Amino acid sequence: MNVKIGVCQLHITDNKEINIERAKNAIMDAVANDCKIVVLPEMFNCPYENSYFPKFAETQSENTVNVLSKIAKENKIYLFGGSIPEIDQGKIYNTAFIFDPEGNIIGKHRKVHLFDIDIKDGVRFKESDTLTPGDEVTVVDTIYGKIGCAICYDMRFPELMRLMALKGAKMIVVPAAFNMTTGPAHWDLTLRARALDNQVYYIAASPARDTSASYHAYGHSSVVSPWGEIVAQLDEKPNNLYCEMDLDYVGEIRDQLPLLKHRRTDLYCLKEK
Amino acid sequence: MNVKIGVCQLHITDNKEINIERAKNAIMDAVANDCKIVVLPEMFNCPYENSYFPKFAETQSENTVNVLSKIAKENKIYLFGGSIPEIDQGKIYNTAFIFDPEGNIIGKHRKVHLFDIDIKDGVRFKESDTLTPGDEVTVVDTIYGKIGCAICYDMRFPELMRLMALKGAKMIVVPAAFNMTTGPAHWDLTLRARALDNQVYYIAASPARDTSASYHAYGHSSVVSPWGEIVAQLDEKPNNLYCEMDLDYVGEIRDQLPLLKHRRTDLYCLKEK
Repeated sequence: MNVKIGVCQLHITDNKEINIERAKNAIMDAVANDCKIVVLPEMFNCPYENSYFPKFAETQSENTVNVLSKIAKENKIYLFGGSIPEIDQGKIYNTAFIFDPEGNIIGKHRKVHLFDIDIKDGVRFKESDTLTPGDEVTVVDTIYGKIGCAICYDMRFPELMRLMALKGAKMIVVPAAFNMTTGPAHWDLTLRARALDNQVYYIAASPARDTSASYHAYGHSSVVSPWGEIVAQLDEKPNNLYCEMDLDYVGEIRDQLPLLKHRRTDLYCLKEK
Repeated sequence: MNVKIGVCQLHITDNKEINIERAKNAIMDAVANDCKIVVLPEMFNCPYENSYFPKFAETQSENTVNVLSKIAKENKIYLFGGSIPEIDQGKIYNTAFIFDPEGNIIGKHRKVHLFDIDIKDGVRFKESDTLTPGDEVTVVDTIYGKIGCAICYDMRFPELMRLMALKGAKMIVVPAAFNMTTGPAHWDLTLRARALDNQVYYIAASPARDTSASYHAYGHSSVVSPWGEIVAQLDEKPNNLYCEMDLDYVGEIRDQLPLLKHRRTDLYCLKEK
């Protein structure tokens, strides 16, 4: 079975309505290009900056989620709604809402590893100043098989990625905003390694780079095959990425190089708590 | 603290004595170049082929191990004795013996993930036809800190690599013989990802390529930094690789990008059984 995926590498502004409008337009372009799964980038309705997260935060019942649900339903697509700052009982999460072709929320991933780093002569960021981490491994059921979802820094942790594969994920979708320190150094490497180790299609959706913003996203939204090859990739500019994925290829790779079968579960144990 | 490591990318023949002699010479070259840790490739005394493993297998008390112990002691080096086919109570293992500067065996790693793969239009190999897998995660104590050791296909499994880091490894040494299918596709990628994810120096020692042998090793013995950069690498020809490692850099990277600290051990659990 094949499915075409669209990844919207959006230019994010400090105007939420403009951000949502751009997302809608990009999704419609993907639909016009026959995409059945569409993915938005991390914090697609909000600048990636701690000062904006509380101001832009919405509940699950507010406009951003409603707009995404409607567009998923009207166009009969699976929509991975990048992420938004979600407020719930006074706490703010970095949350990806996932919609089915009826517009139902079939999953939501709240980023579980917050991005608190301080690289010498490089990037410094502390999400935990404003955000609360989630507590779940997120895998949703679709007619294209199970799809895992995590957000950005989550992909640094092989345990989480592996747990998704063990839960049956054949694809992993990761809205993410690497930066100009970690992007050139680690973006391709981490995407490819996760795809290869877990023998999944790995889809990463970044915002476009905006050098007038405080955080310079790396861009380079990508689709990686279960053999670890980058099969589609953008540069840093706003654009849509399209890729036809052959889902049977996941099984072929898993047969030829049976990594998941060869795990020594008698020697080590990885479990969700 | 700095330490210089030497990796001997040996040309393996079907004559065991010649293989051992070449290993001795290469080790002595590394010693002459001030290396304090020396690493030999996987199956350094035996062609990588199932038909040879039983014929070349030795016990821990036989010549190969004795020679390695003596050379480690005489030259006051840590020696990772690549691997050899080891016979013990009728079973054959793919075993790396590890020696301290007094010539003592301070650890031995028996390959825990056997290489049984069948890539379409590519390599086919079934180690389990002749070999028995080991049952341990191997980390040894040295004056340079803890060093993990695994063999080739073991590196495909993030769980094993992570367990070594959790046991305190600051370096991971992997004698390995990728081939002309998996080498170009996955060698650099896997080495770099393991180094980066676990923030260790990652040292991989391959045999040189011998196109007259049945199994064509990829070569490309490498040292990768804890930032995921290849800091030294050979091509496919017989040669020694030398690299001065700054062990303090491991701690610096772990402070700046605290991946090991940020693991969500409340959400997932990885344990040695």
